[in-house]
Amino acid sequence: MLLKKEIEKQAENAKAASRKMAGLSIEVRNSALLKMSEALEKNLDEILSTNAEDLKAAEEKGTRRNFIDRLKLTPKRVADMAEGLRQAAKLPDPIGHEDFHVTRPNGLKIRRVRVPFGVVGIIYEARPNVTVDAAGLCIKSGNACVLRGGSEAIRTNQKLVEILKAAAIEAKIPEHAIEFIAITDRDAVIAMCRLRKLIDVIIPRGGAGLIQRVVEHSTVPVIETGTGVCHIYVDKAANFEIALPVVLTAKISRPSVCNAMETLLIHKDIAEDFLPKISKMLKENKVELRGDELSRKICPDLKVATEEDWATEYNDLILSVKIVSGVDEAIEHINKYNTLHSDAIITDDEEAAKKFQTLVDASAVYVNTSTRFTDGFEFGFGAEIGISTQKLHARGPMGLEALTTTKYLIEGNGQTR
Amino acid sequence: MLLKKEIEKQAENAKAASRKMAGLSIEVRNSALLKMSEALEKNLDEILSTNAEDLKAAEEKGTRRNFIDRLKLTPKRVADMAEGLRQAAKLPDPIGHEDFHVTRPNGLKIRRVRVPFGVVGIIYEARPNVTVDAAGLCIKSGNACVLRGGSEAIRTNQKLVEILKAAAIEAKIPEHAIEFIAITDRDAVIAMCRLRKLIDVIIPRGGAGLIQRVVEHSTVPVIETGTGVCHIYVDKAANFEIALPVVLTAKISRPSVCNAMETLLIHKDIAEDFLPKISKMLKENKVELRGDELSRKICPDLKVATEEDWATEYNDLILSVKIVSGVDEAIEHINKYNTLHSDAIITDDEEAAKKFQTLVDASAVYVNTSTRFTDGFEFGFGAEIGISTQKLHARGPMGLEALTTTKYLIEGNGQTR
Repeated sequence: MLLKKEIEKQAENAKAASRKMAGLSIEVRNSALLKMSEALEKNLDEILSTNAEDLKAAEEKGTRRNFIDRLKLTPKRVADMAEGLRQAAKLPDPIGHEDFHVTRPNGLKIRRVRVPFGVVGIIYEARPNVTVDAAGLCIKSGNACVLRGGSEAIRTNQKLVEILKAAAIEAKIPEHAIEFIAITDRDAVIAMCRLRKLIDVIIPRGGAGLIQRVVEHSTVPVIETGTGVCHIYVDKAANFEIALPVVLTAKISRPSVCNAMETLLIHKDIAEDFLPKISKMLKENKVELRGDELSRKICPDLKVATEEDWATEYNDLILSVKIVSGVDEAIEHINKYNTLHSDAIITDDEEAAKKFQTLVDASAVYVNTSTRFTDGFEFGFGAEIGISTQKLHARGPMGLEALTTTKYLIEGNGQTR
Repeated sequence: MLLKKEIEKQAENAKAASRKMAGLSIEVRNSALLKMSEALEKNLDEILSTNAEDLKAAEEKGTRRNFIDRLKLTPKRVADMAEGLRQAAKLPDPIGHEDFHVTRPNGLKIRRVRVPFGVVGIIYEARPNVTVDAAGLCIKSGNACVLRGGSEAIRTNQKLVEILKAAAIEAKIPEHAIEFIAITDRDAVIAMCRLRKLIDVIIPRGGAGLIQRVVEHSTVPVIETGTGVCHIYVDKAANFEIALPVVLTAKISRPSVCNAMETLLIHKDIAEDFLPKISKMLKENKVELRGDELSRKICPDLKVATEEDWATEYNDLILSVKIVSGVDEAIEHINKYNTLHSDAIITDDEEAAKKFQTLVDASAVYVNTSTRFTDGFEFGFGAEIGISTQKLHARGPMGLEALTTTKYLIEGNGQTR
């Protein structure tokens, strides 16, 4: 109860701050980003020594190595965060842009303009850089934010927020524009998700468990992000010179990220040729392959893929493989098991490519290239707040515009109805 | 349990149908609308006699008069529904339009195109015309739909769906593109709201209770619609020749709709002049006024407005009145009590108007005209699926575009990452 009250109070403060944010000029918002950037660099030592405390606590708890890697800050990583803020300051203002206007026969002048959401809630896990990115992008887009990071990074996050807030206030940003929920209790996430009317949108960034919990309990609108069961389908008409390197790198270049390939589908007519080739390359790179019956007839050394495999985001050097009868079966399999993230076809057959792009239900559908390109920077959007894997509001890599909504402004001279 | 299974099966069928819908040409979709339109006209007698059964049952249950009015179909209302479908057929295709494209330095061609949502769930109450409008707009936009109407209209809705489905199938629309949930149990609404991955978006249309229930239980993304606590603020610099008719009509022309005014705010400097004038006009039109302390000093015959009044959508000939110290207090009051729907300022002071439009948080903010214009037809969008009162995806009157999402289509020639 106390916990709920405290979080509600923070969100109320953020809401009040958001009312002021809506009237701030882009100069004020950009200057805040630059001051925040400088403050990070100036306080490097303090950030690193605070982070060392989090790392020590995590190690003592026996936290997994890759989790600790995400938690860890280095001078390079702090410099990258500071640079990210400077880059964001250079991006065009996402606010105020008019995207529709009409004068109606009765003389009403109707305009639709981009406005901030108000209060953006971000719930995330180990990476402290999310604290900086999220605060920066929210301020750039005229929003207040309520941040809730993972318990393992609590000291680092609090220190970062302290530094960022002081710098932002110096630039005349309202005091409560950046609110950080320091309650590490899991119930804090649920309490936050139910603050409808105070928080305008919640963006969870993290594993499937976190996202599931948020979706299950939230009455605040949610933008789901990040889970990626991505597929590459190698068609009968595939050019192997494209297919082999694309498939190989989509699995091995960074297996832990959401846009890495998890399932390879191969047309039956070329499987006897293609599968042994790609299997050899993948195995040389320590990838474990799990195949369906047909693929195990061609390569009997593959492990058995179960029903569960098709729906699994491994985030690891594991790949499931299935032989399909053609583009239709590939599309059907993908629409059954994908997470609406990214899927690709490798083919020289334009008809097959078109069909695949039309009928595969995903935020990004690729032809003759890799799912690994689903990324705000790769798309040229600059800073990214996450990758949306749902269909409402924003789809795929979310840049600054995803943190805005619209408003109709109507001017009349006494019209009545 | 049986209920849940049955609804799930219908949603699965709709999902499968939506995969086919995504590939249908606009010619097929438009021809379906025209056939559906004809079928309504051809089956007028059957529709009216089925509707008579619903009306009889409702009357026997002692249902409220205005509810029965909404339930009732007449030859004119059926003709209007048929005409609505013909109008929708004339609207431009919302699908396939490219709204962004870029060629990246590495040669990747990235395009963003409008695509259907997939399956749209619509939950509504007494009005059977929603069945026709929703089915028509979903098919036009390439979506399948799962409809769930109120129990009072069950016979009428089932008859309409039977007629619409037969006509759509004749035009080569997949059989399950229009699914109607005939289970009148309230739990059916909740079961439907939890079919994440089968239903892509749910749009509730109805009273605050229905919308609250959907928001509370849904794991499917929701677009909230329709609740309207709309305000008009008459500023110190208001032209009374504009203010008087705008305020009067905003209350009396159709008090039952969501864009009608519920609260009138008046600048203190003109209140002694304006309030008696408007009060007289409103009372002549049977409007009950409830005022704050200051307004009751000027017009002692006003009833007392309580805290609850400020947050109430009367949908009736009742108006709450408050005297404010200026545009800042007006904005503060509105941001505390509005439902993000529509609010207006009457003023000749451009600065006050600009401040009001910038800082009032609503889907439509008016200057010198009435909140009653928040309506798809009035905005020139044609058919309307509802008025969004939330900030995600769509805001204000939702036309066909609100029933679409986007998809990135990327073409490469072997790029890897």
